[in-house]
Amino acid sequence: MRIMRYSVAMSLDAYIADPKGGYDWIVMDPEIDFKEMFKSYDAVVMGRKSYEAAKQKGGYGMPVPKAYVVSRTLKQADCPDAVVLTDAAKVADLKKMKGKDIWLFGGGELFRSMLELRLVDAVEVAVIPVLLGDGLPLLPKTLARAKLKLTGQKPFKKTGTLLLNYEVRYGMMSVRAGR
Amino acid sequence: MRIMRYSVAMSLDAYIADPKGGYDWIVMDPEIDFKEMFKSYDAVVMGRKSYEAAKQKGGYGMPVPKAYVVSRTLKQADCPDAVVLTDAAKVADLKKMKGKDIWLFGGGELFRSMLELRLVDAVEVAVIPVLLGDGLPLLPKTLARAKLKLTGQKPFKKTGTLLLNYEVRYGMMSVRAGR
Repeated sequence: MRIMRYSVAMSLDAYIADPKGGYDWIVMDPEIDFKEMFKSYDAVVMGRKSYEAAKQKGGYGMPVPKAYVVSRTLKQADCPDAVVLTDAAKVADLKKMKGKDIWLFGGGELFRSMLELRLVDAVEVAVIPVLLGDGLPLLPKTLARAKLKLTGQKPFKKTGTLLLNYEVRYGMMSVRAGR
Repeated sequence: MRIMRYSVAMSLDAYIADPKGGYDWIVMDPEIDFKEMFKSYDAVVMGRKSYEAAKQKGGYGMPVPKAYVVSRTLKQADCPDAVVLTDAAKVADLKKMKGKDIWLFGGGELFRSMLELRLVDAVEVAVIPVLLGDGLPLLPKTLARAKLKLTGQKPFKKTGTLLLNYEVRYGMMSVRAGR
C-alpha cells in the first residue's frame, strides 16, 4: 500500500493561505532540499480550488509525474494535465497502485475528506514563523479528532521554519457527537 | 520593562481547547519541568472566561504569586484571589512594574487584544500531537499579521509534544485592510 502525505506550509495559527489565498508570507528557506522532497513522490493529489489556483499562476507545474484532481464538477476534457477523480473515495484505488508516495497537496477541504476517509497516512508541515490572524485553515472544521505521532522535526536557522513530521494514528481516532 | 509571554498548549491545528473548553487531549509530558517554567513568572494575566473556568475546576490555584483578570464586567469584590483590570491596555502598566516575567495564560481573545496592543513579547506553545478539528483557537480572527522569530524548539520523546518558543517582531507587524 502506498503512503499518502499531506505536505504543506502553515502559519503558527494553522493557516495554509491568507484570506485571499495568498502565499506571500511563506519564506522559502534556502536550506530546505525541495528536490530531495519531491523525489519521494510520483503522484500529487489536489482539490479543485488548489488545481485552479495553480493554473492561474501561469500553469500547473509541479515536479511530480502524475497529477490527480478530486472534483465533482471538473470535466476530464478540460484538464489535459491531470486525471480527474470524481469521488474522494477513489483515492483509495490510487493507494493500491504500485508507486512511490502520494503527495496530498491540499487544500484543507480535501485533507479533511481524506482524513475522514482514513486515507492520509502522514502530515508534514513547514511551520512558518508568522501569525496570520485569518485565512484558509490547515484543517477546516470536522467532527473527527485524529491522534498523531511525531516522527520528525527539523528547524531551519535562516528563516526559523520548522519542518514537522507526523503519522496519523487511526487506531486512536475518535468522532465527536453532533454538528 | 518586564516581558509578557503567552504560554499555552495547542493542537497541531492551533486550538487551545476543544469546542466545549475541554483539555482531555493535553498529555502532560513527564519530562517537561513545569516547576522550572513557573519559576520564571511572578504574575499571571488571564481573561474572564479563563479565570471562571479555572475557578469552576475546584478553585484557582496557579503557582504564580500574583493573578490579574482582564474584565469589564467582573467586580473586584467578587475576586478575592485576583486583581481585576477593567481595560486590556492596563496591562501596559503591569509591564512597567518591577518583577519577573508575566504569564499570559489566555484565552485566545485576550491574546488577540494583547497582540493588537503590542503588549505580548513572546509566544510559547506546547504542540500536542493531535488534530482536534474544532475548538477554541490559539488566536481568534484578527486583521493583525505578526511576524515571529523562532528562539527555541524542543521535542519531548515520550508524548511527542513539541515546545516552541517565538519572539513577536512588532517592527514587522502589519494590519490587513477591511473587516
